[in-house]
Amino acid sequence: MNDRALRDLAIALGGPGNGFPRQDGFDIVVASEVMAIFCLAESLSDLRERLSRIVVGYTRTQKPVLASQLMAHGAMAALLKDAIKPNLVQTLENNPALIHGGPFANIAHGCNSLIATKAALKLADYVVTEAGFGADLGAEKFIDIKCRKSGLRPDAVVIVATIRALKFHGGVDVKEVTKENLAALAKGVVNLERHIRNVQSVYGLPCVVAINHRTHDTAAELELLVKRCEALGTPVVVARHWAEGGKGAADLAHQVVTMCERPNDFRYVYDDNAPLWEKMRTIATDVYGAADITADAKVRRQIRELQESGYGHFPICVAKTQYSFSTDAALRGAPSGHMVTIREVRLAAGAEFIVMVCGDIMTMPGLPKVPSSHVIDVSADGQIVGLF
Amino acid sequence: MNDRALRDLAIALGGPGNGFPRQDGFDIVVASEVMAIFCLAESLSDLRERLSRIVVGYTRTQKPVLASQLMAHGAMAALLKDAIKPNLVQTLENNPALIHGGPFANIAHGCNSLIATKAALKLADYVVTEAGFGADLGAEKFIDIKCRKSGLRPDAVVIVATIRALKFHGGVDVKEVTKENLAALAKGVVNLERHIRNVQSVYGLPCVVAINHRTHDTAAELELLVKRCEALGTPVVVARHWAEGGKGAADLAHQVVTMCERPNDFRYVYDDNAPLWEKMRTIATDVYGAADITADAKVRRQIRELQESGYGHFPICVAKTQYSFSTDAALRGAPSGHMVTIREVRLAAGAEFIVMVCGDIMTMPGLPKVPSSHVIDVSADGQIVGLF
Amino acid sequence: MNDRALRDLAIALGGPGNGFPRQDGFDIVVASEVMAIFCLAESLSDLRERLSRIVVGYTRTQKPVLASQLMAHGAMAALLKDAIKPNLVQTLENNPALIHGGPFANIAHGCNSLIATKAALKLADYVVTEAGFGADLGAEKFIDIKCRKSGLRPDAVVIVATIRALKFHGGVDVKEVTKENLAALAKGVVNLERHIRNVQSVYGLPCVVAINHRTHDTAAELELLVKRCEALGTPVVVARHWAEGGKGAADLAHQVVTMCERPNDFRYVYDDNAPLWEKMRTIATDVYGAADITADAKVRRQIRELQESGYGHFPICVAKTQYSFSTDAALRGAPSGHMVTIREVRLAAGAEFIVMVCGDIMTMPGLPKVPSSHVIDVSADGQIVGLF
Amino acid sequence: MNDRALRDLAIALGGPGNGFPRQDGFDIVVASEVMAIFCLAESLSDLRERLSRIVVGYTRTQKPVLASQLMAHGAMAALLKDAIKPNLVQTLENNPALIHGGPFANIAHGCNSLIATKAALKLADYVVTEAGFGADLGAEKFIDIKCRKSGLRPDAVVIVATIRALKFHGGVDVKEVTKENLAALAKGVVNLERHIRNVQSVYGLPCVVAINHRTHDTAAELELLVKRCEALGTPVVVARHWAEGGKGAADLAHQVVTMCERPNDFRYVYDDNAPLWEKMRTIATDVYGAADITADAKVRRQIRELQESGYGHFPICVAKTQYSFSTDAALRGAPSGHMVTIREVRLAAGAEFIVMVCGDIMTMPGLPKVPSSHVIDVSADGQIVGLF
Repeated sequence: MNDRALRDLAIALGGPGNGFPRQDGFDIVVASEVMAIFCLAESLSDLRERLSRIVVGYTRTQKPVLASQLMAHGAMAALLKDAIKPNLVQTLENNPALIHGGPFANIAHGCNSLIATKAALKLADYVVTEAGFGADLGAEKFIDIKCRKSGLRPDAVVIVATIRALKFHGGVDVKEVTKENLAALAKGVVNLERHIRNVQSVYGLPCVVAINHRTHDTAAELELLVKRCEALGTPVVVARHWAEGGKGAADLAHQVVTMCERPNDFRYVYDDNAPLWEKMRTIATDVYGAADITADAKVRRQIRELQESGYGHFPICVAKTQYSFSTDAALRGAPSGHMVTIREVRLAAGAEFIVMVCGDIMTMPGLPKVPSSHVIDVSADGQIVGLF
Repeated sequence: MNDRALRDLAIALGGPGNGFPRQDGFDIVVASEVMAIFCLAESLSDLRERLSRIVVGYTRTQKPVLASQLMAHGAMAALLKDAIKPNLVQTLENNPALIHGGPFANIAHGCNSLIATKAALKLADYVVTEAGFGADLGAEKFIDIKCRKSGLRPDAVVIVATIRALKFHGGVDVKEVTKENLAALAKGVVNLERHIRNVQSVYGLPCVVAINHRTHDTAAELELLVKRCEALGTPVVVARHWAEGGKGAADLAHQVVTMCERPNDFRYVYDDNAPLWEKMRTIATDVYGAADITADAKVRRQIRELQESGYGHFPICVAKTQYSFSTDAALRGAPSGHMVTIREVRLAAGAEFIVMVCGDIMTMPGLPKVPSSHVIDVSADGQIVGLF
Repeated sequence: MNDRALRDLAIALGGPGNGFPRQDGFDIVVASEVMAIFCLAESLSDLRERLSRIVVGYTRTQKPVLASQLMAHGAMAALLKDAIKPNLVQTLENNPALIHGGPFANIAHGCNSLIATKAALKLADYVVTEAGFGADLGAEKFIDIKCRKSGLRPDAVVIVATIRALKFHGGVDVKEVTKENLAALAKGVVNLERHIRNVQSVYGLPCVVAINHRTHDTAAELELLVKRCEALGTPVVVARHWAEGGKGAADLAHQVVTMCERPNDFRYVYDDNAPLWEKMRTIATDVYGAADITADAKVRRQIRELQESGYGHFPICVAKTQYSFSTDAALRGAPSGHMVTIREVRLAAGAEFIVMVCGDIMTMPGLPKVPSSHVIDVSADGQIVGLF
Repeated sequence: MNDRALRDLAIALGGPGNGFPRQDGFDIVVASEVMAIFCLAESLSDLRERLSRIVVGYTRTQKPVLASQLMAHGAMAALLKDAIKPNLVQTLENNPALIHGGPFANIAHGCNSLIATKAALKLADYVVTEAGFGADLGAEKFIDIKCRKSGLRPDAVVIVATIRALKFHGGVDVKEVTKENLAALAKGVVNLERHIRNVQSVYGLPCVVAINHRTHDTAAELELLVKRCEALGTPVVVARHWAEGGKGAADLAHQVVTMCERPNDFRYVYDDNAPLWEKMRTIATDVYGAADITADAKVRRQIRELQESGYGHFPICVAKTQYSFSTDAALRGAPSGHMVTIREVRLAAGAEFIVMVCGDIMTMPGLPKVPSSHVIDVSADGQIVGLF
């Protein structure tokens, strides 16, 4: 039920009875700092405490105004009292799964709630958690924000790859990715190779590549991809869970167990003590392959002010396109030497990170040209139709 | 969580990606035509059909644009699929009660869902239903809108009166209404008397007056009020349910059963075939005691256009203050000879009535000076506090 | 260069550097209180003093904020320093005329500057001044606002009438007014007759009717109209200045000179000391033929507050349609018994009157469907074309 | 009378009678494309023709909408019919000067009208024209836009320098610039030296440095500056016109005459045929000393689209801070190796250039904290006071 018309509005029109006019905007729930806080809170009281620290605006003399000063944090916590309890659901094969919280993987850190992960670790021998978009975004934030804040330490990483995406990174048009194209695949594998290198060398973790098998993949393509991974000494498994269910992922599961036994050299991308600008530069150069970072004088001044206001120890939450290692969605493969321009900086004082927006992103997503409401309906016998 | 700043806004700012800018506003749920439709629908398919007829705007050539033309009605019905089923709750003494739907008693017709009322009639020997504000607003709309549309026929009316309200109608300041004041009570009873007369003579129904007993009521005041009612030949009962629970209302219940046995002359205030202007005039003169109705040329033209567009057979839903028979909240007692000015007219094509706004009303209510969120909180043991 | 899109806007969007957002609107110059002040000022220093008293808004505690508190009045007076000097222009026949100031005849008082009128009285034996729309609007405001404030005393009134307008008041469609129609004319003359009666009995002034002769007027129509005026004992002259220039108005001029010799009983419509509500009621009943005036509780409260805030001695400036004695443009002829609804009240503290808006009016006029800019151009030899 | 609250607004609120709501903004006159066109037009008919080509918006399918399609250009030309004629004014010493047109030196090209310059060339032996901010902005645009479009060829350049500005470029705080500081001056001269080099080597023109003498300049400072210029072989003159009037600039004038006799190698900074991106890069590297230019994917796409839409032959009009060769106002002296980020691109189809906004600039200037209106007033004898 989101509506892009609500992204940017002038409110409190119609006279003084309606309050002071101001320009404001709606975000979708997953882009709200409340969602990020929700997923990083250790408990209900920690949630309440973090909500109290949200900066909702600034006074005329540029002092931050906190949610606690508006006395809003208690009521906000009350609204979330039941939501903070993890949801236990089951897969089609009746395995337990916890689905709890969903911070946007660009404007926020992109992984589910800390409470759910910790609950799962008490309940199971192995816990698999998803970490947002590509390993440059999702894994980096999982490690530098969620793990850093909570003390969680992953034992191994599964990098999921599809042959169609690698052919796309090799330059093939999106309409042609279902056709066999060994040359493009060979070229696009550089994208996967950089992700592997990042996981192993930058994050210090063992990894396995899971080829998410699709109907159009050919034997020659699978063979090529397996060989390229093996050349790097990285275990690789063809996973057929889409077609075969849990059985199709059994090999992958066994491989993951093996990887978890291995010693690892887990580490964060940057130190807490590095200045904000250096943290961002380290991510850009070490993970994205960029030459350097740049920003307007205004943005640089904001970063300096955050540094001087006592937020310098916060981690960075990068908001950038998931289609490229760079900030330009059109740069496929494994670009290097590019500049990362920081367009905007936002303080998430409750979630305890600094968002750095690099390139164009939107916090309320685009909508289909034909609204889904055109096909959703209730049938004569009271059943909802048209949802899928 | 309502916010008066959302009453009047300019939306879709920020560039073409956000749609076409327009001025719009949020209403609270109970002021929406959807709520009125919800409470008048006979079934889920009737709900869907009525939603399809909502007029959401007009083309440049002033042709109505329906929800069905936006293909939104099916999805709206899908959202309401479960809500349309009545809620069975229980009183503190474990009696069953259905609470289902809540259209505003000013901008809409102010009584619960037709489906709930019909379900109750199948389940119980006697069904008591609440009808909004004063008997000039709530009862009139219950009869002229809900009963007329559904074929429901009430057998008797309970008019609830408090001594404090009648003293207020007798001219006492609101801060003084708890003090005994026989003179003011004697003067203010004219308000009750007109309600009694309306129920008996205009709606053609037997009625009983329930004096909703309050701690500060004195014996002398109760005696005076009982006598005045008896002088009109109207049964009157002192109801002490607030202090005594169900037992305190037993006399009232028996009296209601007695009234239901009586023959009645139930009728609507106006005929379906009367023109819209005449319908409104009849309500104003016969129920409110007004001299006449008036309206700007623009409003009169709108009424004429609705009449000519085929909506002339719709009933009227009057939106006016509940503090007076007139449109001026300061005119207490039983004013007569006043003018009722129609300020605005709105078509509710799905709910099948014409709203006539008389005097100033707001469709998103005022909020307390100190937000409730200042006191709502969660305690250390996870309990919500500060709600009441 | 006016643009109706500027009537209602939300300004100061785009961030704190642009100021505090608020809802505002542009008016055309002639609808501004500055124009009304300009036309009522006795001198440059009086202009400055009146500008200083403009109420530009209210504090949170509803105290007025004056232009002088914003220290804006000096600069405003500086901008108008040269404009305050009357413009002397000449007619096609080289007679002198002063054209100076143009307050809207609805939202303001509708006549030219006091300075120009006083200058003219020093320069000529007879001064003719135009007073806005109909004699119910223009003449009433000229007398009750401009004359009252300045001590000017007119000696005689010229009521200009056209046969086509009187046929329109007799019920003829505007497309048919050029055709001879004695019945309609006979019926429509009641409009003129009420204007005559108002001038003579209410304003206490002698008057002459000038029939503004038009090509389509027939001899029979002229005869009928002359007879009807004579039956009232009112001098009437056919004026042919459109066709014949100054010569065509010579008879009228002589008649005006004669009228000026007569003694008169000039008086205002209401006393300074009457309450605002009574002033408005007197205008409505005595001049418009209305039964009474009415207003919402909110408007009545505003009038009461203005009365109590020390503005009760101000005259009233009525803003209503010029097409009818009533507030309904469709009520032609000489309607009586109608209600005049006050829709809105505005304080013009610098101009020293209270505007009472009765019915729908706009302070920025409508624009043609095809913009004039479509035909305005400069020719190859640098001449402007398309202006007329 | 500009108001920063008008920079960003939502207009046409208040209902369909006011048009379609949209977000818009006012610019000051000098920032309008109309002003740029006005100053580049060869004649009234050329002005009309250029106005017709202004792109006022885009259709849904991204086709440009021209002023001519709105049929607005003829009326716009009519409004400017008299303004297009140059204004002849006189200096305090009664020398003739033409002051005509004033396009902003950032968002537009910053020099007076072509018509005025050509008129002056017919009337005088030598014409001196001012070219906006620093020689990196003003002179570059004068040459690459005004000269290129009109065929004008300057014979010599006067670079105006102040000792206080050069000390500021040498790192001195603005509050200390009036104190003698030879070290800072020696350091800051690099700024002047780059301007000299740009004029001589990039624009191919002889130049003379005019030291705009100020009261606080010391003999030692003047000597240092003169020596540094002479070391470059560049003529340098101390000009004392502020203190001495025309006599104080006589030496400078003679020197300019001498320079005009010299042969020159006048040339534009880039070729018409170079792609837009290359033109901008050439300005940035050759004139500003930058390492390279950069831009978001969105801006690069806009530049590519302008190139492909047939605007590739237009010159570039750079909008950047005048406080630095870079886009960062804090980088004083003669910075090199910096990146120039293009933040925004605007097509001026009528003025025939492409604006490239580099860094933060505003098209409606900031206003003083205390409005000038606080001191502007009219005195008792009708004189305006407080303007200066």
